[in-house]
Amino acid sequence: MDYIGLDEFILSALKEDIGTGDITTNCCIPAENRSEAYFLAKEDGVICGIDIAERVFSLVDKKISLIPKLKDGDSVKRGEVIADIVGPSRSILNGERVALNLMQRLSGTATATAKAVSAVSETKTKIVDTRKSTPGLRVLEKYAVRVGGGHNHRFNLSDGVLIKDNHIAAAGGIIPAVKACRALVPHVMKIEVETETLGEVQQALEAGADIIMLDNMSLELMKEAVSLIGGRAVTEASGNMGEKDLLSVAKTGVDYISIGALTHSVKSLDISLKFRK
Amino acid sequence: MDYIGLDEFILSALKEDIGTGDITTNCCIPAENRSEAYFLAKEDGVICGIDIAERVFSLVDKKISLIPKLKDGDSVKRGEVIADIVGPSRSILNGERVALNLMQRLSGTATATAKAVSAVSETKTKIVDTRKSTPGLRVLEKYAVRVGGGHNHRFNLSDGVLIKDNHIAAAGGIIPAVKACRALVPHVMKIEVETETLGEVQQALEAGADIIMLDNMSLELMKEAVSLIGGRAVTEASGNMGEKDLLSVAKTGVDYISIGALTHSVKSLDISLKFRK
Amino acid sequence: MDYIGLDEFILSALKEDIGTGDITTNCCIPAENRSEAYFLAKEDGVICGIDIAERVFSLVDKKISLIPKLKDGDSVKRGEVIADIVGPSRSILNGERVALNLMQRLSGTATATAKAVSAVSETKTKIVDTRKSTPGLRVLEKYAVRVGGGHNHRFNLSDGVLIKDNHIAAAGGIIPAVKACRALVPHVMKIEVETETLGEVQQALEAGADIIMLDNMSLELMKEAVSLIGGRAVTEASGNMGEKDLLSVAKTGVDYISIGALTHSVKSLDISLKFRK
Amino acid sequence: MDYIGLDEFILSALKEDIGTGDITTNCCIPAENRSEAYFLAKEDGVICGIDIAERVFSLVDKKISLIPKLKDGDSVKRGEVIADIVGPSRSILNGERVALNLMQRLSGTATATAKAVSAVSETKTKIVDTRKSTPGLRVLEKYAVRVGGGHNHRFNLSDGVLIKDNHIAAAGGIIPAVKACRALVPHVMKIEVETETLGEVQQALEAGADIIMLDNMSLELMKEAVSLIGGRAVTEASGNMGEKDLLSVAKTGVDYISIGALTHSVKSLDISLKFRK
Amino acid sequence: MDYIGLDEFILSALKEDIGTGDITTNCCIPAENRSEAYFLAKEDGVICGIDIAERVFSLVDKKISLIPKLKDGDSVKRGEVIADIVGPSRSILNGERVALNLMQRLSGTATATAKAVSAVSETKTKIVDTRKSTPGLRVLEKYAVRVGGGHNHRFNLSDGVLIKDNHIAAAGGIIPAVKACRALVPHVMKIEVETETLGEVQQALEAGADIIMLDNMSLELMKEAVSLIGGRAVTEASGNMGEKDLLSVAKTGVDYISIGALTHSVKSLDISLKFRK
Amino acid sequence: MDYIGLDEFILSALKEDIGTGDITTNCCIPAENRSEAYFLAKEDGVICGIDIAERVFSLVDKKISLIPKLKDGDSVKRGEVIADIVGPSRSILNGERVALNLMQRLSGTATATAKAVSAVSETKTKIVDTRKSTPGLRVLEKYAVRVGGGHNHRFNLSDGVLIKDNHIAAAGGIIPAVKACRALVPHVMKIEVETETLGEVQQALEAGADIIMLDNMSLELMKEAVSLIGGRAVTEASGNMGEKDLLSVAKTGVDYISIGALTHSVKSLDISLKFRK
Repeated sequence: MDYIGLDEFILSALKEDIGTGDITTNCCIPAENRSEAYFLAKEDGVICGIDIAERVFSLVDKKISLIPKLKDGDSVKRGEVIADIVGPSRSILNGERVALNLMQRLSGTATATAKAVSAVSETKTKIVDTRKSTPGLRVLEKYAVRVGGGHNHRFNLSDGVLIKDNHIAAAGGIIPAVKACRALVPHVMKIEVETETLGEVQQALEAGADIIMLDNMSLELMKEAVSLIGGRAVTEASGNMGEKDLLSVAKTGVDYISIGALTHSVKSLDISLKFRK
Repeated sequence: MDYIGLDEFILSALKEDIGTGDITTNCCIPAENRSEAYFLAKEDGVICGIDIAERVFSLVDKKISLIPKLKDGDSVKRGEVIADIVGPSRSILNGERVALNLMQRLSGTATATAKAVSAVSETKTKIVDTRKSTPGLRVLEKYAVRVGGGHNHRFNLSDGVLIKDNHIAAAGGIIPAVKACRALVPHVMKIEVETETLGEVQQALEAGADIIMLDNMSLELMKEAVSLIGGRAVTEASGNMGEKDLLSVAKTGVDYISIGALTHSVKSLDISLKFRK
Repeated sequence: MDYIGLDEFILSALKEDIGTGDITTNCCIPAENRSEAYFLAKEDGVICGIDIAERVFSLVDKKISLIPKLKDGDSVKRGEVIADIVGPSRSILNGERVALNLMQRLSGTATATAKAVSAVSETKTKIVDTRKSTPGLRVLEKYAVRVGGGHNHRFNLSDGVLIKDNHIAAAGGIIPAVKACRALVPHVMKIEVETETLGEVQQALEAGADIIMLDNMSLELMKEAVSLIGGRAVTEASGNMGEKDLLSVAKTGVDYISIGALTHSVKSLDISLKFRK
Repeated sequence: MDYIGLDEFILSALKEDIGTGDITTNCCIPAENRSEAYFLAKEDGVICGIDIAERVFSLVDKKISLIPKLKDGDSVKRGEVIADIVGPSRSILNGERVALNLMQRLSGTATATAKAVSAVSETKTKIVDTRKSTPGLRVLEKYAVRVGGGHNHRFNLSDGVLIKDNHIAAAGGIIPAVKACRALVPHVMKIEVETETLGEVQQALEAGADIIMLDNMSLELMKEAVSLIGGRAVTEASGNMGEKDLLSVAKTGVDYISIGALTHSVKSLDISLKFRK
Repeated sequence: MDYIGLDEFILSALKEDIGTGDITTNCCIPAENRSEAYFLAKEDGVICGIDIAERVFSLVDKKISLIPKLKDGDSVKRGEVIADIVGPSRSILNGERVALNLMQRLSGTATATAKAVSAVSETKTKIVDTRKSTPGLRVLEKYAVRVGGGHNHRFNLSDGVLIKDNHIAAAGGIIPAVKACRALVPHVMKIEVETETLGEVQQALEAGADIIMLDNMSLELMKEAVSLIGGRAVTEASGNMGEKDLLSVAKTGVDYISIGALTHSVKSLDISLKFRK
Repeated sequence: MDYIGLDEFILSALKEDIGTGDITTNCCIPAENRSEAYFLAKEDGVICGIDIAERVFSLVDKKISLIPKLKDGDSVKRGEVIADIVGPSRSILNGERVALNLMQRLSGTATATAKAVSAVSETKTKIVDTRKSTPGLRVLEKYAVRVGGGHNHRFNLSDGVLIKDNHIAAAGGIIPAVKACRALVPHVMKIEVETETLGEVQQALEAGADIIMLDNMSLELMKEAVSLIGGRAVTEASGNMGEKDLLSVAKTGVDYISIGALTHSVKSLDISLKFRK
């Protein structure tokens, strides 16, 4: 991961969790004690965040070594060892919770993504994420989506154009809205338009939209929309997809399904840190 | 909320979501346009984060006003308006996603907490959170737990003592571990000991622990432990409580049930921002 | 400008320039003195940075008012007043240099951009910037390019795809490189390929590149390339364009000319702050 | 360079340029690829920033080595290799633009300074910079001035006293202004007074100014001023010196010539990063 | 010390002391010079901050080695060597002042604490600190108190409950105030109540306070209060203790004496850095 | 005070003291309660930090008003009211400790300075501070020295030249050291040389030093040195001056006496915050 802000993020997470010092550990465990520990999967899933956990421990104490047994994206079974951690006992305990909090969440996202990808695997449809991520964790959560086999939608409001109802209303219609964006946004970007009806799809086509989002459409309507578009634009199904039958949606022929729940409503994967001695 | 770091947190969330500028909005919507919008609940739950959403908008643009229709902790029904937002259209769109991402997550935690609190309401047992929170959001998530009617366990490793198996092993037993902490930690803090067997409970009692955590015990064992303790220490049930029958656990007579899932595996409450014009 | 990081940037510029305090001013000028001052253009150009200068003064002291006489993008003549500044004399002097250093540089970029835009105004070719900007000032400098009538290329390595020779070599050719990007980058992005020969242009076309950069080509070669492409991809001329005859380049029919010198080699516009009393 | 803030500055420049990740490189180039590259001068000049470029690469990836062929302050000829860079291909590409943007700008300033120094080399006059530097880059740009053979004026408003017209007006004249400063500023500092007429020069002398700035004077007037001062104060010529005949100015006998253009209007030195394989 | 913010704190102290560079050293001492130096105690005391000094030098320059001759908490005699420092001369001089400023202050606090601890050593009374610490240095100063043999009171307003007169007045009395806290604060915390009269002590006992602070009481009154409490709560004497006869206070039987002067009014221990060559 | 970093410093002090929230206050005091309070001097001294305290409260809560009864630099008598504070009770309690910790320390420094200034008031000698300040508080502490009637020595290593024994040794003597500095440091700075013997004083004179520090000299030796210098350089007495008879030192005729103890060993002025209701 070429994520320049990673250390800063981890340090602030460590400050949040350690506060002014781990008083229990400092009272009970001599500074010179060393431990061997390991991350243990307590349920099946797709693992994500091993390198990040290593960085957490390394920022706590350079004398900790993390030896991975798996790599990000690997499937893991309940009872499997994910990585060994060896080093000063105090430091391992200092980093434990932050490492777990990150790895469990990211593995939760990777696992949920992998399930969605698998659900539509017989089609050509790809699963993408949204901006409905946890504040502060977007780069990490979007990494977890990729690790789970999904793809990333835009990262933020500046690296992708998505024309929604308010933009359309203010610009005086889909066609002037697309035209305004085409004239001003960097030429390296495509133009995506959100539509809810066939009429809007038709206008988006006329406006020359590169991508047409089919938002909150019924399966039937979506099928008609895909057929109307006929390959003239990329299609993306959207709208509380977490609760829908993804395969049916995929079978309408859409190119992408975007799912907010991959990042906004995730069950953490159950992982714990065990000590050998 | 007297949270000194709130502005810094929100500004960094806004940077993450806005990047170098909202290019779609800047192309489509004139700078002088004004909008009236509102937050709409799309499912039932307990609302949390209204003041935080107001602060988000205020940091984007002082000219935005948020007029709350509810306050944090209120129950909300699907279809209910949570707050009105009035101001420059561009600014409302700039802050929309961060406000929603925060309010949805925190309302998710408040709602899950309220459910847990309600499940044990016929007993005297209180619901508490854990350190299994989202990195960067702990103060906010623990606030959401309180808003949902729950209580907070320690915020971090420095403001509470919790003696776990590694501490016990390193210190040479529960009694020396408690003694070591009692001698060194600030006298304003209680000493909590994690136990898994009745033998450990007995030692914790002898050591004079203020709080005894009953970790991963069966209901039967927990009942025996509570009886053995007999009010000589505060009791806390722990261990994947999210999946258990909370009322049965409460009926064992424990004082507190701590639930990691309140913060590590939360379904966001479905809320959206709608524009009136 | 919806630039969330602006205040932080200005505060750090003020710290850099003020250090531990403006000792000369504090010795000579009573705290209660007030001044009326104005920004005076000392040469012709396009003005940029008035709102930023206002924000500089406002962060120094809320009691300063800046009254703009022009707005960003306006042409200014030598001797023209750009804005009035009224407030505590000490505070005006504290903010003077940072306000000028920013406004002069940004006006320099806006002026250079306007010259380039004007040079090709009889064609449909657009002027775009590059990533050759001043570290720390990219968002501001790219804003100045837009203020001068130019367009923005990608802001950074994450919001645009540009396949260069190293990428091509590593991927095993233009076609596999484009394919690899198409498969993995967010679907909201176009794919741009850098080419130096007609052979490479041909491959880029076959690969389905959305944008083809014609790098360091002679006018003749560029003309052939544009003709070969025949509208099947957007074209962008690149390569030390600051020193070339822009109109001749534009007349080859390219859609965009990217010019690094707009941000890396700019003569600041001569502006000074004068005091009326 | 003992510049404590250097890492923080470079990291923020890298964040600005890399954003959430170099998507093109990540798609095209395998993580394990290694490259050998080098910085190539594409025009003559004085090189500055080699150690800074090394620090850039080192902050991107500790596995990159930069082997300098020249050192800061060396003259470089078009076609000369400045340094070799060896390491992971992805990391070299991640750091390339920031390293170049810094080295090109700083070499531009060093080169311009060397030209000015050379222009007056037959006299005893020294070339100094001003506070007209790029916000955020002052320490680096003033370093480049020294590398080019120039000297530094004060770094900020707190480490040097410069009494200008507004100070004089508010204090009630040059003599009371100098007196006020002498009484209050740290005794380790000299007092400089800006003058535009011989009358003001005379007052500055009477006030006991340590340094007298001759601002915007004609050559003739400057000569008279230097003669009037007669060694009783250090002299500094100032006022759009970038456009003047520096040797003629130097021959008036002034001790220093301060030139804002060394930092506010610099042409970057043309350097590129080439890959051997 | 497991203090996550230590590096950030030291870097900011170095920036404060070095500014834009140590100009004297850079002019006089060649970059390649190396020195051997040592910290010399110039008066008797308890040393504190050796590891912190090492970290200061390490953040200035990894090539500096600090070889401790003593460890934190050791008594030191005038004329004793505390540690050797070996490395580049410039870097040692760059870090000298910050290292000394920290070590001298912390040793001052450790020494004052050790004196207080010694004064009451024939009793069971413990010495604790307060929140009257230097802004920015609390974690370090509380560490110094522990190093001197003292104990820490709460670190901040969130990790300990201390009910004072304003809280009591607003809550409607000691009993409702304790009840309100007991109901809402994390169960890992004890409740402390500040009292000034025996009546208040009596109410605090009835309220079930865990700790009773005897604030500004005469020795006689304190003795009565301790007797009234009779072991039913922990007792803490408070109120300008720095000026009192600590042994007499301790002999009243209080468990803790809190002394603000340990951190708010400390004489730095006299230490200097000497160069061997 | 034109101190750009003040808000950042105060916010970080508030975070340090408030942690995750003032739990006692939040439990006991309703959010809508308002209080009237005042700062009360509990001993005589010179007050410093009123504006800073106001800024502390204003950063906690804009609804707090501080109404000063005195201004920085005023003498205060035990029992005198320094300022009134009116606003929400919770917010006043949140800011109380940080405001006091700052104001007490700074008033301590101002008071100590005023005593030193007074001790030498019959002479022309001025009192100056040193770099022996508290890390993080230098700008504030040096402000307190000015408020107490003292003067500031250099703020850091970059805004003043002070040639000490190590510099002299490395440069090969006082004369080459002064020459090296004169050639390279900004011409706005004076050159100060530390001397311990008459021989060194003689060399410093020959080298043309602007300021000669007389370090750790006996009164007799100092008198001889002052006489030898005979007004050809500014003189500064230094060396544990806190413990010496300042008037005797001043009577040797030195221009400045620098006293580290003004900032490194200060007794805080006793001030408390009292509530009227």
